[in-house]
Amino acid sequence: MAIITLTTDFGEKDHYAGTIKGEIYSELPDAKIVDISHSVSPFNIPEAAYIIFNAYSSFPKGTIHLIGIDSELNRENKHIALKLDGHYFICANNGIMSMICAEIVPEKIVEINIHDKIQTSFPVLDVFVRVACHIARGGTLEVIGKATDTIKPIRDLVPFVNEEKNQIIGSVIYIDNYGNVITNIKRKFFKDIGKGRSFEVHARNYKFTTIFNKYSDIIDFDIPREKRNVEGKGIVVFNSGNYLEIAVYKGNPDNVGSASTLMGLNPRDTVTVNFLDK
Amino acid sequence: MAIITLTTDFGEKDHYAGTIKGEIYSELPDAKIVDISHSVSPFNIPEAAYIIFNAYSSFPKGTIHLIGIDSELNRENKHIALKLDGHYFICANNGIMSMICAEIVPEKIVEINIHDKIQTSFPVLDVFVRVACHIARGGTLEVIGKATDTIKPIRDLVPFVNEEKNQIIGSVIYIDNYGNVITNIKRKFFKDIGKGRSFEVHARNYKFTTIFNKYSDIIDFDIPREKRNVEGKGIVVFNSGNYLEIAVYKGNPDNVGSASTLMGLNPRDTVTVNFLDK
Amino acid sequence: MAIITLTTDFGEKDHYAGTIKGEIYSELPDAKIVDISHSVSPFNIPEAAYIIFNAYSSFPKGTIHLIGIDSELNRENKHIALKLDGHYFICANNGIMSMICAEIVPEKIVEINIHDKIQTSFPVLDVFVRVACHIARGGTLEVIGKATDTIKPIRDLVPFVNEEKNQIIGSVIYIDNYGNVITNIKRKFFKDIGKGRSFEVHARNYKFTTIFNKYSDIIDFDIPREKRNVEGKGIVVFNSGNYLEIAVYKGNPDNVGSASTLMGLNPRDTVTVNFLDK
Repeated sequence: MAIITLTTDFGEKDHYAGTIKGEIYSELPDAKIVDISHSVSPFNIPEAAYIIFNAYSSFPKGTIHLIGIDSELNRENKHIALKLDGHYFICANNGIMSMICAEIVPEKIVEINIHDKIQTSFPVLDVFVRVACHIARGGTLEVIGKATDTIKPIRDLVPFVNEEKNQIIGSVIYIDNYGNVITNIKRKFFKDIGKGRSFEVHARNYKFTTIFNKYSDIIDFDIPREKRNVEGKGIVVFNSGNYLEIAVYKGNPDNVGSASTLMGLNPRDTVTVNFLDK
Repeated sequence: MAIITLTTDFGEKDHYAGTIKGEIYSELPDAKIVDISHSVSPFNIPEAAYIIFNAYSSFPKGTIHLIGIDSELNRENKHIALKLDGHYFICANNGIMSMICAEIVPEKIVEINIHDKIQTSFPVLDVFVRVACHIARGGTLEVIGKATDTIKPIRDLVPFVNEEKNQIIGSVIYIDNYGNVITNIKRKFFKDIGKGRSFEVHARNYKFTTIFNKYSDIIDFDIPREKRNVEGKGIVVFNSGNYLEIAVYKGNPDNVGSASTLMGLNPRDTVTVNFLDK
Repeated sequence: MAIITLTTDFGEKDHYAGTIKGEIYSELPDAKIVDISHSVSPFNIPEAAYIIFNAYSSFPKGTIHLIGIDSELNRENKHIALKLDGHYFICANNGIMSMICAEIVPEKIVEINIHDKIQTSFPVLDVFVRVACHIARGGTLEVIGKATDTIKPIRDLVPFVNEEKNQIIGSVIYIDNYGNVITNIKRKFFKDIGKGRSFEVHARNYKFTTIFNKYSDIIDFDIPREKRNVEGKGIVVFNSGNYLEIAVYKGNPDNVGSASTLMGLNPRDTVTVNFLDK
């Protein structure tokens, strides 16, 4: 039986996620339901796009990813189902899939048309669950929708490069639980443009000239622990998703502070990389 | 194997919910445990009543719903187990079941009497789990309790109607993750009293004369997107649970604001509907 | 198939926990994954130690507990796997296991050495999941590490006793979801030192001379409900984990206040018990 994952902005408190699970188990008693996140900020499509992009490929091929963010059906917000990289995705065509689709070409996209005249204020329950169960039972996308090839884009998906090819102008796309500041500059992009040149990463009035492999690379273990003075210190890494990330060593937004809180960096803020002539 | 759902005020951080799950799996290795919510506000019975009422019926018949809110046993707070609508519920008799029982007559209610002299500060673990596993194994309610017919009520379960039958005086019973303001006025009640008359919904100094089918019905899609000016605008709908709800289009309590934060509406606040003579 | 539990500081929003689950299901389709907590405060080792200690033993023997807090590998932060009390634990050797190991001697501890030259900023995914799956498949600890006997300690694990044996100087180790203040003074320790003497529990300028069995023991049920005046009143209990806990009857940090917020008690604060001569 296929895995069905849930990524929503339902929050942790309300009954919405429980209701979805109940409906799925009612239809498919042997389903394996996995929560990816219910704490996407309400209606925050870029956050949802980042989360599902970074989670989906850890799951086995054939997994069905149900994404419930800003999913009310109207003439500007259609429901789609995709097959991509061996996975299935069900969501509104509101930009959520643009991050994945920018890197991997979908095998098939359909615009869901099983609604007819359903007027529903809870389409994740009334439409997406039905589509997920259909796919889990081995049904094809053609049966529940008509082929389309339009994926709605979101802003700031990829960074800009200047004409001289010596500057990347990126932007912050996500702040994680540690207050780490994640940009849209990916490792491969950085290497392709940088070609091994020295560089400066600029974010507000902070400047970094090194990109570490992991957070604790900032520590000089030969210095006694009490003289190190690294907690709260800024650092740049390529994170586990290969994004250029500005972090603070052992950051915690609630007390010692984090890259986001200490440097005042928020989604959509600009982060630039200047490559230096050899 | 039956599904066992959990609805508690344990929060997301502490070990309490994990402990409950561990105990259930120790007794019933094949149990299917589903979290409905662990983020009910501490000791908030009306919230718990609303959440379990709106979640339970999505699950298959035979599901066992364990509800851990204000469940310490004392002479004013007894433990009960119910069969209702083909589902089982285990909780304290503190008002949590009053919302469901107002609509559906229980098939059986027992006051749990397996405690004898157990002095426990964690009855969800020591009593409710044991009862849930008993039921999951096919045990009857009679074995773990003695029949009762008393369900403790909560306030503001149903709205009032004036003598002239042209006004409903309801109240706010829940604020959801989007800051939507949910009242105790249900669609059927509204229709029965209103009999198709025009109406005004009043909440604080806000007035609404339309009830939409879904949130985006407030949009006039013929107006260009940038001129619409609907984000943050108040709207009334009957929500997916058929409650009259005051919402804000794409509300988010943390930034743009929500119906609750923008209009200053909180649980127990009054919302009235005036029906207009034809 | 063994249960794999997760205790991390990943938070509820990011994709990290979902990614871990996806990887486990990819390797072990029949695994049963149980979340204990993803809301440990970032890098808070004492919190994690308390949570896993109080949760693990509810699970069946053979359960594999994966703990992802401050787990980046470096020369001062090694990865370990333990067998203890019939359970398996995988974590960094950063103090997380010190609370359990202070009470129960591990059957085996190994320092994980499957990394070789893996440079990873997400070791929970790249190392711990692999070890968990190895154990779940019946693999031995010897294969993935070399024996060690060093468990890194944390501060304030056990309270102090003065020379005269009439004072316990304990400290706050955890604040739970209800704002209850949990100390490192355990029931058995208290009894061993107190030997039945009268006592005073001191925390800041508050003094308590009774330890209740459960929270509602503070209520005199013979007084009419409206005259009781107990909500928000301080109380001392031995909690479900047998820790001396300072609570507030029906406390809620977000509104009426809790023991932590009302008394200003925080982790590491001192709580003393003075035993009185007979």
